[in-house]
Amino acid sequence: MCMNYSDYFILMMEILGTVSFASSGAMLAIQRRMDVFGVTILGVTTAVGGGVIRDLILGITPPSMFRDFKYALMAIVTSLVIFTLMCLRRQLFSGNFLIWYDKVMNLFDTVGLGVFTVVGMNTAVQTGYGDNYFLLCFVGVVTGVGGGMMRDIMTGTMPYIFVKHIYAVASLAGALVFVLFYRHVPEIVGMLLGAGTVIAIRILAAHYRWNLPRVS
Amino acid sequence: MCMNYSDYFILMMEILGTVSFASSGAMLAIQRRMDVFGVTILGVTTAVGGGVIRDLILGITPPSMFRDFKYALMAIVTSLVIFTLMCLRRQLFSGNFLIWYDKVMNLFDTVGLGVFTVVGMNTAVQTGYGDNYFLLCFVGVVTGVGGGMMRDIMTGTMPYIFVKHIYAVASLAGALVFVLFYRHVPEIVGMLLGAGTVIAIRILAAHYRWNLPRVS
Amino acid sequence: MCMNYSDYFILMMEILGTVSFASSGAMLAIQRRMDVFGVTILGVTTAVGGGVIRDLILGITPPSMFRDFKYALMAIVTSLVIFTLMCLRRQLFSGNFLIWYDKVMNLFDTVGLGVFTVVGMNTAVQTGYGDNYFLLCFVGVVTGVGGGMMRDIMTGTMPYIFVKHIYAVASLAGALVFVLFYRHVPEIVGMLLGAGTVIAIRILAAHYRWNLPRVS
Repeated sequence: MCMNYSDYFILMMEILGTVSFASSGAMLAIQRRMDVFGVTILGVTTAVGGGVIRDLILGITPPSMFRDFKYALMAIVTSLVIFTLMCLRRQLFSGNFLIWYDKVMNLFDTVGLGVFTVVGMNTAVQTGYGDNYFLLCFVGVVTGVGGGMMRDIMTGTMPYIFVKHIYAVASLAGALVFVLFYRHVPEIVGMLLGAGTVIAIRILAAHYRWNLPRVS
Repeated sequence: MCMNYSDYFILMMEILGTVSFASSGAMLAIQRRMDVFGVTILGVTTAVGGGVIRDLILGITPPSMFRDFKYALMAIVTSLVIFTLMCLRRQLFSGNFLIWYDKVMNLFDTVGLGVFTVVGMNTAVQTGYGDNYFLLCFVGVVTGVGGGMMRDIMTGTMPYIFVKHIYAVASLAGALVFVLFYRHVPEIVGMLLGAGTVIAIRILAAHYRWNLPRVS
Repeated sequence: MCMNYSDYFILMMEILGTVSFASSGAMLAIQRRMDVFGVTILGVTTAVGGGVIRDLILGITPPSMFRDFKYALMAIVTSLVIFTLMCLRRQLFSGNFLIWYDKVMNLFDTVGLGVFTVVGMNTAVQTGYGDNYFLLCFVGVVTGVGGGMMRDIMTGTMPYIFVKHIYAVASLAGALVFVLFYRHVPEIVGMLLGAGTVIAIRILAAHYRWNLPRVS
């Protein structure tokens, strides 16, 4: 299997996403006073949990994380690095560094949400479900937000995606863009259009402090 | 595929069940101050979540909600209607209307619990597991109560079915009736006997305030 | 299928594990003031939940608990016995009896964690995944700790395995020992070495009050 530039580009986005998802899980686990093993499990679950749910729904067993280890491995390493940094230099995570860290992680998380959404849809297309747009959109959003939802449920936190900011709905918008275009453009273009939509909406939503309506 | 009167009757019961399950999810989501997207997700999860767990256990992938969209669609519409009503006219949900609304939704919920139980068992029979009574009963109860359990877990609520009133056990009683009869009567009769048992037990339990014993 | 002494030995360990897992679920359900049905469901979920997750990941549908009922049945009976004892003689569970009960159940739980870990891995080997060490270890740990995690999530408790004592990591250590040896020794020897490692680490950890590091 040879990779060209666009494959590398997708892979690079997946790596950023995996690192940021894993670190959000690890950070929440540390806040909940879990031990180093719990921190690692939660990091990995956040990073790859969405893909596992997607694979179970599509009937792909064992899930792809067990055939391509690099994502789980990256999540383990990320979690251990975060844990070690927090043990050795907790004071690092304060002041300017914390602001900078949060900004970078938010950006990576946005990239991850975008790329996981379209990678999940692409998996469904390649498994033969390209005609089922409802399924495509569902597995796209689940791949994007499922890991974060598992993270929140496993720590007894109200799932973030239900309460704050334009998050899952950005993933859904990107999924719809992918569905609109993927038959008419090369695969990679469809994926970049979808992921780009997610990223653009998330950045705009953060900047203009958009929120979905709720009952006041 | 032509439908006869009894198929329509089952479908009608499923529609009532879907509407009431979705509205219970949407209402809880609104109470938890989720946004409109979270309200919809929780409505859909409550309505179709039990069927998804059943299908994963039976090895039906992708789950049937992705082949027959009408239930998910009804759940989405129901959730959005509830959300809109709560936004526009919150005061509507008080006084006499609230009492009436709760009564109707409780009745629909009871019908839904009954019909989902037997529809779930029928799915297992048609998938070739008619001989495995334990599996039949399990998927019947899971189809009936699984969505509500997911709703409660996703909102950090103690699962309703474990703490209050005769609920899951009514579903189990209906499942046992279905198992007793389904080989000896036409399919539709077995389903109606099972669903009827669930509904009768639930109505009696509500009227006489039955509860299962617990450690005092 | 004829069983020899070693098969009986494994079965005996599984029975101890099933009883202790089920009773931990039933006890937590009683503390959470669930009714007798909830107590039973939680007992069964704790006892067989890990195996169900394993089977879904390996694509074994319906999960093996629906083909071999004895574990679910034992868990139901255990839960009902615990419930009845707690109803009739709550005062029994205090003083010396409680200390003795906790010690025995802890020992059974340790045996269960050990045997479920290696039985889960053996299932994966027999399903044809003997070469995928990552998958083997994952399903081993999931079979061991998955039921307890479901128990905690369903009752809104912070998952035990993430916060206290050497638990999941003991299961992982046993899994690694199994992976090291299982190709070079008879199946039963590999299983006993793996399970023995789990049990030894748990007993040492309890005695010397080992805990994994956490961020202080």
